[in-house]
Amino acid sequence: MDYKVKDIGLAEQGRKQIEWAELHMPALMEVRKELVAKNSLKGLKISAVLHVTKETAALVRTLKQAGAEVALAGSNPLSTQDDVAAALAKDGIKVFAWKGESEDDYYQNMNIILSYNPDILMDDGGDLHALVHEKHSNLKIIGGTEETTTGVIRLKAMEEDNVLKYPVIAVNNAFTKYLFDNRVGTGQSAIDGIIRSTNVLIAGKVAVVVGYGWVGRGIAIRFRGMGARVIIVEANPLRALEAVMDGFDVMPMVKASKLGEIFVTATGNINAISKEHIQNMKDGAILANAGHFNVEIDVKGLGEIAKNVREIRPYLDEYTLANGRRIYLLAEGRLVNLAAAEGHPSEVMDLSFSNQALCVEYIYNNKEKLQKKVLNVPAEIDEKVAFLKLKGMNIEIEELTKEQKEYMKQWKYGT
Amino acid sequence: MDYKVKDIGLAEQGRKQIEWAELHMPALMEVRKELVAKNSLKGLKISAVLHVTKETAALVRTLKQAGAEVALAGSNPLSTQDDVAAALAKDGIKVFAWKGESEDDYYQNMNIILSYNPDILMDDGGDLHALVHEKHSNLKIIGGTEETTTGVIRLKAMEEDNVLKYPVIAVNNAFTKYLFDNRVGTGQSAIDGIIRSTNVLIAGKVAVVVGYGWVGRGIAIRFRGMGARVIIVEANPLRALEAVMDGFDVMPMVKASKLGEIFVTATGNINAISKEHIQNMKDGAILANAGHFNVEIDVKGLGEIAKNVREIRPYLDEYTLANGRRIYLLAEGRLVNLAAAEGHPSEVMDLSFSNQALCVEYIYNNKEKLQKKVLNVPAEIDEKVAFLKLKGMNIEIEELTKEQKEYMKQWKYGT
Amino acid sequence: MDYKVKDIGLAEQGRKQIEWAELHMPALMEVRKELVAKNSLKGLKISAVLHVTKETAALVRTLKQAGAEVALAGSNPLSTQDDVAAALAKDGIKVFAWKGESEDDYYQNMNIILSYNPDILMDDGGDLHALVHEKHSNLKIIGGTEETTTGVIRLKAMEEDNVLKYPVIAVNNAFTKYLFDNRVGTGQSAIDGIIRSTNVLIAGKVAVVVGYGWVGRGIAIRFRGMGARVIIVEANPLRALEAVMDGFDVMPMVKASKLGEIFVTATGNINAISKEHIQNMKDGAILANAGHFNVEIDVKGLGEIAKNVREIRPYLDEYTLANGRRIYLLAEGRLVNLAAAEGHPSEVMDLSFSNQALCVEYIYNNKEKLQKKVLNVPAEIDEKVAFLKLKGMNIEIEELTKEQKEYMKQWKYGT
Amino acid sequence: MDYKVKDIGLAEQGRKQIEWAELHMPALMEVRKELVAKNSLKGLKISAVLHVTKETAALVRTLKQAGAEVALAGSNPLSTQDDVAAALAKDGIKVFAWKGESEDDYYQNMNIILSYNPDILMDDGGDLHALVHEKHSNLKIIGGTEETTTGVIRLKAMEEDNVLKYPVIAVNNAFTKYLFDNRVGTGQSAIDGIIRSTNVLIAGKVAVVVGYGWVGRGIAIRFRGMGARVIIVEANPLRALEAVMDGFDVMPMVKASKLGEIFVTATGNINAISKEHIQNMKDGAILANAGHFNVEIDVKGLGEIAKNVREIRPYLDEYTLANGRRIYLLAEGRLVNLAAAEGHPSEVMDLSFSNQALCVEYIYNNKEKLQKKVLNVPAEIDEKVAFLKLKGMNIEIEELTKEQKEYMKQWKYGT
Repeated sequence: MDYKVKDIGLAEQGRKQIEWAELHMPALMEVRKELVAKNSLKGLKISAVLHVTKETAALVRTLKQAGAEVALAGSNPLSTQDDVAAALAKDGIKVFAWKGESEDDYYQNMNIILSYNPDILMDDGGDLHALVHEKHSNLKIIGGTEETTTGVIRLKAMEEDNVLKYPVIAVNNAFTKYLFDNRVGTGQSAIDGIIRSTNVLIAGKVAVVVGYGWVGRGIAIRFRGMGARVIIVEANPLRALEAVMDGFDVMPMVKASKLGEIFVTATGNINAISKEHIQNMKDGAILANAGHFNVEIDVKGLGEIAKNVREIRPYLDEYTLANGRRIYLLAEGRLVNLAAAEGHPSEVMDLSFSNQALCVEYIYNNKEKLQKKVLNVPAEIDEKVAFLKLKGMNIEIEELTKEQKEYMKQWKYGT
Repeated sequence: MDYKVKDIGLAEQGRKQIEWAELHMPALMEVRKELVAKNSLKGLKISAVLHVTKETAALVRTLKQAGAEVALAGSNPLSTQDDVAAALAKDGIKVFAWKGESEDDYYQNMNIILSYNPDILMDDGGDLHALVHEKHSNLKIIGGTEETTTGVIRLKAMEEDNVLKYPVIAVNNAFTKYLFDNRVGTGQSAIDGIIRSTNVLIAGKVAVVVGYGWVGRGIAIRFRGMGARVIIVEANPLRALEAVMDGFDVMPMVKASKLGEIFVTATGNINAISKEHIQNMKDGAILANAGHFNVEIDVKGLGEIAKNVREIRPYLDEYTLANGRRIYLLAEGRLVNLAAAEGHPSEVMDLSFSNQALCVEYIYNNKEKLQKKVLNVPAEIDEKVAFLKLKGMNIEIEELTKEQKEYMKQWKYGT
Repeated sequence: MDYKVKDIGLAEQGRKQIEWAELHMPALMEVRKELVAKNSLKGLKISAVLHVTKETAALVRTLKQAGAEVALAGSNPLSTQDDVAAALAKDGIKVFAWKGESEDDYYQNMNIILSYNPDILMDDGGDLHALVHEKHSNLKIIGGTEETTTGVIRLKAMEEDNVLKYPVIAVNNAFTKYLFDNRVGTGQSAIDGIIRSTNVLIAGKVAVVVGYGWVGRGIAIRFRGMGARVIIVEANPLRALEAVMDGFDVMPMVKASKLGEIFVTATGNINAISKEHIQNMKDGAILANAGHFNVEIDVKGLGEIAKNVREIRPYLDEYTLANGRRIYLLAEGRLVNLAAAEGHPSEVMDLSFSNQALCVEYIYNNKEKLQKKVLNVPAEIDEKVAFLKLKGMNIEIEELTKEQKEYMKQWKYGT
Repeated sequence: MDYKVKDIGLAEQGRKQIEWAELHMPALMEVRKELVAKNSLKGLKISAVLHVTKETAALVRTLKQAGAEVALAGSNPLSTQDDVAAALAKDGIKVFAWKGESEDDYYQNMNIILSYNPDILMDDGGDLHALVHEKHSNLKIIGGTEETTTGVIRLKAMEEDNVLKYPVIAVNNAFTKYLFDNRVGTGQSAIDGIIRSTNVLIAGKVAVVVGYGWVGRGIAIRFRGMGARVIIVEANPLRALEAVMDGFDVMPMVKASKLGEIFVTATGNINAISKEHIQNMKDGAILANAGHFNVEIDVKGLGEIAKNVREIRPYLDEYTLANGRRIYLLAEGRLVNLAAAEGHPSEVMDLSFSNQALCVEYIYNNKEKLQKKVLNVPAEIDEKVAFLKLKGMNIEIEELTKEQKEYMKQWKYGT
């Protein structure tokens, strides 16, 4: 049997989830229409390691309907939605994923999807690419894609060591991913996670956002939009100056720690909230992390200075410090939008998965021409995804006249 | 045994919830401090019918610590938090409430708490006051409070018919309730309910808010703060003009129905979204109600024009119309912030429950003087609650100088 | 000759200004259409003391085109726009006003316009009403209107003393004046005045708004909208709590005075910024007043603690304190939006002048019925003005269905 | 005499303006302190062609106090502030500039300042650099700076033709210029120009911003902040999608032209508002340009379709079209923030002039090492300017710990 899922009986439930996702992925639906009309991926074999979610299902169904044969394994033992996996299996996708699979299962599933002799690999984290390079050098891969920063770093290292065996497109670097995922997707879902786990009122609270990169901006603007008084902590003076000009108070953590009522980290750095900062905090302070890794809050340090710890409600742990103050840690310091909410809305995944689908087509069409390097998403694909997203949302944009196109050219070259 | 709850073993869990609520009810904690210091309610017997939630527990504990003896029944069979009830029971409150009680239970519990010969009654909806007037005319009640609009309307009718037997303070009419409950509390929790039940992205969506009263404003400003494009539908020209000057697009529902992607009703009126409006809507439109009664969306009409209905996820039902478009109804058209989220955050209940506690003290202190009418919350209590809220939040406000107080007086009387 | 203006040759220039105003007064233009169609004011004589501005001209032309004979004098020697006066004179209005008239001229002009035997009086400040009561008791006045708070206070005093000889409608109290004038009109023009007189960047500045009434709110929201970091100073706990829930920092002036870079008063009170506060301020602090009277900033005290004063540019005076810090006072502490900018935009005057025109018609139509009191603008006029404003802006609003009207009635009376 | 100005008697007035500017240029004041302490520019001769404004004076005074000898000519015959020029002359700057100088004067003044044998040239537009290359090849120039995009384009062309004789730093490309000048400076001053020339109310208006680059964003966010309903017109799908996700309506000009009440162009392109668009517009539409060149609105076409043109007030011209509608053009389609307001506030110039001063020092210190190319502002200078700006505003930012610096390094190189 060409699949392995928890319970094939969940297919109907899964199908409903996928349809709900597809309704909110208009760009991908436009891409699907195009690829299906051209039967673009006919004859192509794809093996993919991705989070098996309803949005991934929308991508995989697109690839299949465009002519490809797809085998899918999960990229994380906890993220697989078993009903979605069942629906995909029923639809003829070779899916090998279930929630709670062991590390052995994880590697075995990867080996299974590689046994279908894929032409193209899609990966989320770089484990599949690594496995192929290490143990499946016989495979004739024409190219691959990679969704994450972490995966891209690993592939870049391979490129530098001259061992990369096929071109890989770093979907992560597309503007349509970068500009929206962090600011819009994490911006909303981080606040969602905080509210779901605490049900506190945002209005009137002092919210400290640590880091004013794309994630931090997205969170800060939404906190303000819900009535919080927002403080930004940032070490980069350019970003700090932008924050000031955007109307936010800016100060170092040592000061902000005494004023904040909700703290959210989004720095990409370690111990953005340290033990010392926590000692400063008011009774009742809430700590959440919106950065990728759970290193931004010193959870270990927090444990050391606490005399008592208890769970108040799911994802909400109370640490009572020796000084008597109670500090509330959300989701153990892990990404609050994934742990305590539902991660990116489908509308956000729409952008990166449209890039994925178009990049697969691009690799297929250019298989002879691409260098064995980590490549950026071609600008025309990136721009096309934005265009299709708008089209799918029924939003028309301005079209430059011939005269305007000429003018812009002239300007670029000087006069 | 002086209580009846689902499971007294839940007391510890309930106590944690109550403590979490009290942490976010700084005004009530200030009130508690004051009343306890004066032992204000010594000798007073109170019977209360209220939603048995962690916030109500904070109120009831305040009354008890200030010297009162309190008996409590639930005001709604679905709203009782059994762990909270258990904790209260353990604390010596005469609590008679559990989730899922029958209508018979409901009336029996009311009769039980009346059997303690209360001096003051607290009610949420007016059933307790009605019951006393109908069947317990022997009781010597010195006064009561009422939390809701509905209850106040019923009591006003009794006042007009000259049958009201004791003074009742309409806590609902306090500025500190009115101005914050709707705008801030429902504003946040309605959007919370929409996100929890759909996980859609708010940014970029066309959100139609039907009604620009306090609730509508609170929702509209937060939708905008999360990146939605907001349209207001309003029949009152003054409110509509305010909406325009606040920067919102304003149009009648017949037009808005064709543009919206998320619709939220907050009009207090019937069929604010009618069958005809729904026929106009785009595929994928989401309908939610933030008004008190589930009459604002014509749910029956929606059912009539649908050829298929199915549940996608909890609180999210898909109606496929004859025209092929899919309409998504949240929480069956009931208050989305209660049904699909957690209702008002503790910070909001803090205001109305501080009014409750101070009004109980006020009735007790003025028992000889108050008329047998529906009374407003005294202005000095209303203002005091605001002051204590700010104090509890460590926010200082300006104090008028003697000169300034003189000047204001002078101005009022003209020169 | 039935007019006295500075230079009739300015009429063409004045006409352009009036047309520019009328273009931005769509409600008044709708009122004009209606009154003219009915020839409503046929045979009516009106004498008016108003600021002779392009907006007033639009009102006066409306009255005339609807059939009235109008005589006009200026309500302030500095506010008359001579070109507008000339254009009105040319149009057949009996205008007696010029910029820079003496106090004697002012009273003489009032006497002149009263010599036309008016039926209705329109006033701005109450001097005309007072003059009639004192010296022209022979006149047969059927009623009047009053534009300002000050005038209303004077008339109320007359009413209380039982000396008021005719009904006067207090246009000032209309919702369509009250809700928009202060928040929207002063909100914009106060910031305009600050920028025109200083050209400072608002983004990133700490702006302290003293007073969170309608004016303060209008200013605060616009400061935030331009990137300022806004602090609210407010003595009323209810308003202060609203400010906090709207996301502003709130603190007493003694603290805010140390943090602010721009200060704007809008309290209606005396010495909202005192000498002591000014001593606390940073070098470079800017002080502006947006309240009606120039008592809110202690200008005299500022002079006392300054060791040097000089004008930097028009409306911008530098006070160097003994402590070496430089404080900048705008427009000598007078209303910054009138002194340093152009006061209310025409769009705002549109609302109060539509009320004026409709109230004149109302008095005329009800001349037998009205009591000799200070009356509020009838609710139906107030609402109609809002409706006509929206209509003139081409904005449609919702219309209640018959069913909805029934439901609202039912609800009001309880069930 | 080493200067030529309009009237040396204006020096005192000019000095006040310069002091007002310096008060709002905290970064430059920090730079001044540093350079003066080190006497960094001792022995250096600088000739500069810059707009002779109060902000430029603050820069030039900084260079002089740090040890340089400075000769200054104006970069535009209209931008010279004669009082500022007088104050500089009195201070010992060799200034040759006056308002209204002829083109001959302009070139003669450049020749005069070159006669002082400068080491470094500062230019705004590239004319000085061109003149040196064409006619003063004998000069021993060690380097130069250039403030504008236009100048940079000209210099790049020279570099490509291998004729550039010395290194030039393109100050225009600094993040601290680019990110703030356009968004914050033009954002505020464009709206200021619109209000000053029209006094229209922004609240409730439909404002169409054409172009969602940095300038467009700055304007759009401020329009929203003042209560306008904002529509974005944009041809680039990525920017258009950002606008949507920021909550703005997006549509092509052909549609927006029918809805807008105020239009502002910021595209950098020709005929962003064409004759055809104008034919669509409502009676009363206002047109303003915030782009550098006056090509964005088809002013010529507007003239062709108008049957009548007249000036209403300064910078506000009324064009009556054959269709009877009146269109209002601000400042003849030239940059509205310069023409009708005062251009960038000092706070914005602070950033680019701090870069200028530090780049001059950098060229001086590295005179042997720099290549004869158009160079970017060194990243450490760019970042330092942001840091000094914050310092000058008394804003502290976070400092990375040693551990955090290590972590960031590690991350960059992968693990």
